[in-house]
Amino acid sequence: MPSQFDPPSGTRDFLAAELSRREHAFEVIRSVFGSYGFEPLQTPAFERLDVLLGKYGDEADKLVFKILRRGEHEASGEADLAMRYDMTVPLARVAAAYGSQLPMPYKRYAMGPVWRADRPGKGRYREFTQCDLDTLGSSSMLADAEVLSAVHDTLAALGLSNFSIQLNSRQVLQGLLEAFKVGPDAGPGVLSTLDKLDKLSPAEVTGELAERGLTESTAAELVEVVLARDAAQQLSVMLKPTARGPAGLEQVAKILDLVGPQLPPERIGFAPRMVRGLSYYTGPIWEVTAPGVPGSLAGGGRYDNLIQQLGGPDIPATGGSLGIERILLMQPAAGEPAHSQLDVAVPVLDQDLAGQSFGLAATARAAGLRAGVYLGGSGKLGRQLKWASDAGARWALIYGRNEQADATVTVRDMVTGEQSAVPVSGLAGYLADLALAGQAGQRPA
Amino acid sequence: MPSQFDPPSGTRDFLAAELSRREHAFEVIRSVFGSYGFEPLQTPAFERLDVLLGKYGDEADKLVFKILRRGEHEASGEADLAMRYDMTVPLARVAAAYGSQLPMPYKRYAMGPVWRADRPGKGRYREFTQCDLDTLGSSSMLADAEVLSAVHDTLAALGLSNFSIQLNSRQVLQGLLEAFKVGPDAGPGVLSTLDKLDKLSPAEVTGELAERGLTESTAAELVEVVLARDAAQQLSVMLKPTARGPAGLEQVAKILDLVGPQLPPERIGFAPRMVRGLSYYTGPIWEVTAPGVPGSLAGGGRYDNLIQQLGGPDIPATGGSLGIERILLMQPAAGEPAHSQLDVAVPVLDQDLAGQSFGLAATARAAGLRAGVYLGGSGKLGRQLKWASDAGARWALIYGRNEQADATVTVRDMVTGEQSAVPVSGLAGYLADLALAGQAGQRPA
Repeated sequence: MPSQFDPPSGTRDFLAAELSRREHAFEVIRSVFGSYGFEPLQTPAFERLDVLLGKYGDEADKLVFKILRRGEHEASGEADLAMRYDMTVPLARVAAAYGSQLPMPYKRYAMGPVWRADRPGKGRYREFTQCDLDTLGSSSMLADAEVLSAVHDTLAALGLSNFSIQLNSRQVLQGLLEAFKVGPDAGPGVLSTLDKLDKLSPAEVTGELAERGLTESTAAELVEVVLARDAAQQLSVMLKPTARGPAGLEQVAKILDLVGPQLPPERIGFAPRMVRGLSYYTGPIWEVTAPGVPGSLAGGGRYDNLIQQLGGPDIPATGGSLGIERILLMQPAAGEPAHSQLDVAVPVLDQDLAGQSFGLAATARAAGLRAGVYLGGSGKLGRQLKWASDAGARWALIYGRNEQADATVTVRDMVTGEQSAVPVSGLAGYLADLALAGQAGQRPA
Repeated sequence: MPSQFDPPSGTRDFLAAELSRREHAFEVIRSVFGSYGFEPLQTPAFERLDVLLGKYGDEADKLVFKILRRGEHEASGEADLAMRYDMTVPLARVAAAYGSQLPMPYKRYAMGPVWRADRPGKGRYREFTQCDLDTLGSSSMLADAEVLSAVHDTLAALGLSNFSIQLNSRQVLQGLLEAFKVGPDAGPGVLSTLDKLDKLSPAEVTGELAERGLTESTAAELVEVVLARDAAQQLSVMLKPTARGPAGLEQVAKILDLVGPQLPPERIGFAPRMVRGLSYYTGPIWEVTAPGVPGSLAGGGRYDNLIQQLGGPDIPATGGSLGIERILLMQPAAGEPAHSQLDVAVPVLDQDLAGQSFGLAATARAAGLRAGVYLGGSGKLGRQLKWASDAGARWALIYGRNEQADATVTVRDMVTGEQSAVPVSGLAGYLADLALAGQAGQRPA
C-alpha cells in the first residue's frame, strides 16, 4: 500500500546496499566501454521542449515529462522544457553544437537516468537508467562490429553467460520483401509479423502472414527460409537478384567475421527473422537475448540518417543500448560480500576519552580502513558492541581507563570475539597489517 | 551567442575531459565519506509537489522546477511533481519511509544534481551537483565533529590546502543577544549584520548595528568581542549569566577538542561572528572559507527539529553541504594527465586484414590497455597515424601484408616514433609489460 512517504509512482529510492550493487555494475560498464576508447558524455536532465518533441512520434511524445514555465509565466500552464526521454536526441544536439571540437569518429557512451511517463509496472519504471554506446562519423562495418564486441564484453564482464546475439541487416529484410514480391504497403506489416517468430510458433506466424495478403505457400516458404539452419546459404542464392539483399548479407558476413573469432560460437548468429521495431535503422541490426528472459538485454544497429533528422549534422552512425534494469536483475548475486558500513568500530566508553576514540578512528582510516566512532548515548560496552556488529564492523577498537593506564588499545575481532592488547604506539602498523590481510581475504584464490 | 544547439539556459553538457575530471573528484569524495562509514543514498530526480512545496519558504518555492501533469490532465496546466531542489527534503522523506530499515544513527551522503530556476550567472547554474553529508539520530557532539572531520579530509583529499573552518554555535549567538540585551525582534537583524564581518569593516558593521537600534558603544563592544583573539575567554565570562551561552561555548570547545588534534592549527577556529543564513540550525554551525574565494566552500550545522518539520520523524540531525561547483573551480589542475581516448591505436591498412586488426585490439584490451581500431575510410598509414596521435594513443599496432608474411606486429611508439617488430605469438606478453610500465609511469615517484 503506497504511503505518503513513498517516492513518486514509478521511481525508486536506492539505499546503500542496492545502490552499491548498481554503482559497481555501472563501473564495470564504464571500464569496458573505456577500454574500447568510448568517451563518456553527460547532458542535462532536461532539454528545451522543441528539441525533444516531434522526435519520437505522437505516442512517445505523450510520455515526455514536461516542465512548467516559471515565474510570471507559470500561470500560463505552458511547458518550455522537457525531461530527457532517451540519450539519442541529446547526442544529436551535442553533435550539432560541438561538431569540430569532438573527435571524429565520435565514440561516446552515455549512462544515466531517463524519464518516461509510462504506466509503471513490474520492472517498468518512470525513472530508469539508460546506457547507450554510439559511434558517429564512420560508415565502416568495423564500427558496427566494435559496438557489438563492446556490448558483448560488457555483458560478460557483468557475469552474464547465457546470452546470445542475433544479427541481421535492414538490407537483408528489404531483399526478402523484394524476393517474395511483397509490395511497399504490405512490407512493414509483414516484417513486424516475421519479428514475432521469437514468441509465436511458425504456424501462427504463417497464418498471420497469410492474413496480411501473402499466399499460404509464400508465407510458409518465407517462414521456412528465415528459420533455416543454412539461411545464409539459401538467402545468398535467393536474394542475389534483389537490389539490396546482397549488400545486407555482406554486412552480416563481415561483422560475423570481425566479431566471431573473439566469441564462443554459440554467442552470435545470423537471424534473418529479426527486425527490431524502430523504423530508423539503415543497415546492420542486432539484439541480445537470453533464454527465459522476455524481451532483449540489449539492441542496436546502424542509423545513418537519424542524427540529421534529429537536428544534428549529416553523419553516419551506429550504436546500441543496454537494458540496464533488466541486466541488473539477471546479474548473478553470488560472491557479493554482504553490505557493511564499517571495517572498524570505535566504542566511546568514557566521554572524557572521546578525543582519543576519535584519534583511533583517524588512525584506522589512515590505514585504509573504514572507521567510525559510537555516536549514541549509551555508555555500556555491550550496547556499543551490538552497534559495531550491526554496522558490519570486522574489528572494534576499545579504549577505556584501563587501556589508558597501560597505553594500549584492545583490538576485538568481532567475528571470533578474540581480543588483543596492542600498544598505542604500534596501532598504526597493526591496523595496516589487518587492512592488507583483509584485502587479500576478499580476493578469490 | 547562444545557439539553438546549446543546452538549456543554466545547464551544461559535459564532454569527456571535463566529465572525467568531475567524476574523479566525486570518486575522491565518495571514498572519504565511505571511510567514515557514511552510506550513499539516491532518491529520484523529482518528488511529489506537496512534498517539496512550502518547505523552503516563498522565495525558494518560486525557484522550484514543476512538472506538468500528463495525459488528459496536461491541459489543466497544473503541476503534480517537482524537481529535487536540495538533498534535505528527500532525506526527511526517506527517514519517514524507511525508519527501522535504516541503521541508527543513519549516516548518509547524497551526491547528485539538484535543479533551481535561479537566474543563471557566472558560476551559477540551474542544474548543479550538490553533495550533502548528514547524521540522523545522534545528539552527540561527536556526530558534529565527525561530519566536520570528514568534510575537512575530503577537501584535503581533493588537493585543497588554503582553507579554514569557522566554528560557532547558535547557543553562543543567543547568549550574545541576551548579554547585549538585544530583544527578540531585533535579534535576527543584529545577527545578520554581525555575519557581514567577513565582507565589511568593523566600523561599517558597527554603524549598521547602530542603525538597528544598538547604542554606538554597545555596537562597538559587540563587534570587538566577536573579533577578539581571545573571544572564547572573554565570552566565557560574558555569557556565564545567560541561559544558553555556556552550553554553546561547551559545544564549540568539545568539537575543537575532538577535531583539532588531527588538523593543522590554522585550519579551524572559533568564529563567534559567524551566523549562517538558514534559520533552522539549533546547535553548532560551521563554514569553510578560502582567502580570495567569495562565499563558502562548505557549510553546515546541527538541525535537531528540521527532519520532523519536513515531514520526517522527530530525530536529532547534524550535517553539511560541500559547494562542489566552487570546489571544482579551486582544485589544482597540476599533475592531471591530458585526456586521451586510447592507449593503443590499431590502424587498418588492408580491409582484408581488418579481422586481424580487430583481434590485435582485443589482445591489447586483455592486457589492460584501452584499444581501438581505425574506423575511417582512408587506407593511408600517415592519415591513420594522425588519427592515432589525435586519440592520444601511446602506441600503434601496425599489421599489414609484410607483417602477415613475417608473423609479426609492428609496435610503434607514438611519442618517439620508434618501431619494433614483435612476433604475433609474443604480443600479449609484450603488451602486458607495456601496460605495467605505463602504470608505473603514471604514479608520482
